[in-house]
Amino acid sequence: MRVMVALRLKGVEYELLQETMGKKSELLLASNPVHKKIPVLLHRGKPISESLVIVQYVDEVWPPPASILPRDDPYAAAIHRFWGQYIDDMFPPRIRILRGTVPGDKDEASDEMTTALLYLEEAFVECSKGKQYFGDDSIGYLDIALGSHLGWIRAVERIAGVELLGGAKVPNLAAWADRFCGHPAVVDVMPDVDILVEFTAKLI
Amino acid sequence: MRVMVALRLKGVEYELLQETMGKKSELLLASNPVHKKIPVLLHRGKPISESLVIVQYVDEVWPPPASILPRDDPYAAAIHRFWGQYIDDMFPPRIRILRGTVPGDKDEASDEMTTALLYLEEAFVECSKGKQYFGDDSIGYLDIALGSHLGWIRAVERIAGVELLGGAKVPNLAAWADRFCGHPAVVDVMPDVDILVEFTAKLI
Repeated sequence: MRVMVALRLKGVEYELLQETMGKKSELLLASNPVHKKIPVLLHRGKPISESLVIVQYVDEVWPPPASILPRDDPYAAAIHRFWGQYIDDMFPPRIRILRGTVPGDKDEASDEMTTALLYLEEAFVECSKGKQYFGDDSIGYLDIALGSHLGWIRAVERIAGVELLGGAKVPNLAAWADRFCGHPAVVDVMPDVDILVEFTAKLI
Repeated sequence: MRVMVALRLKGVEYELLQETMGKKSELLLASNPVHKKIPVLLHRGKPISESLVIVQYVDEVWPPPASILPRDDPYAAAIHRFWGQYIDDMFPPRIRILRGTVPGDKDEASDEMTTALLYLEEAFVECSKGKQYFGDDSIGYLDIALGSHLGWIRAVERIAGVELLGGAKVPNLAAWADRFCGHPAVVDVMPDVDILVEFTAKLI
């Protein structure tokens, strides 16, 4: 999803090759032999792996006006990168616990995700400067980094019966999430929460 | 060490504020309230945290000729970022196991580190294009990312009695490691392996 949103923001056409659960294509194994996982962007015959690495590659290869990392503002870019890394350290392992696909303390996972969202609520206020997105007027790196987890955050609220974005604790972030999901570059690639809930029910 | 090497490559003077083991300064807690850990770069009164985020900030703020990420080559930059992330996922947890500061299977940790170093041996051949460093003729992002672990890699070879860089499996990487440690931007900030070994012996 991160890669597709980045390409859509830049107005770049792409072909989506889907992988099937449980068996990996030869092309995937050849393109990302280290991690053997999606996403991989194939561009000019060369593979690029790791979603946030790809997002930066897309930002550097395709010129503005659409800019993903703040341009000519190294401090703002550092803030986006800092939170991008934080999000990927914090959310995926705790989402897996709340989905029930790995063992772990669900209350603890939910509390830690809430703490993370409270930090990000603060970061949103600072980065957006009263505008719509972390990237100010337009979707940026941090919007993509956090936004790609929204489907699963909302799904685990239902699966585990917890309040994360849904409570009243992070009002700015909750409003941002609705805006992000409705953005033209996002709306067609955001997974449906019902499907994520159903998919998890079949797995466990 | 990553931050100091980056600043030295750029020829930027800095003041080093050391933290004392076991108690965190007020300045550190105020500057990095999320992770409460070093390194933090304070520049123009603003804090930047997370070592590889800081390295990219330094690269963007201080102009070439010294360039840390490959310039005007988004694919090469993506390769550097990919391996930088891989290194930080792979090495620190396994180094802690081999030091004996956290429990875990030492043989497995050593085997996994060897696998990682074999990948990096290949990456070195591709990135360096027959030159001295991952960054071609000069030290780049990936040199800094991997180089900052060399002290501990060599220390755990002695602490755990394992062969990592010391064996004959990664000859290009072993030669690179010696070159890196002797580089003028590195030589004064590379920790002494004896001291790391001694420090670990006192901890456990």
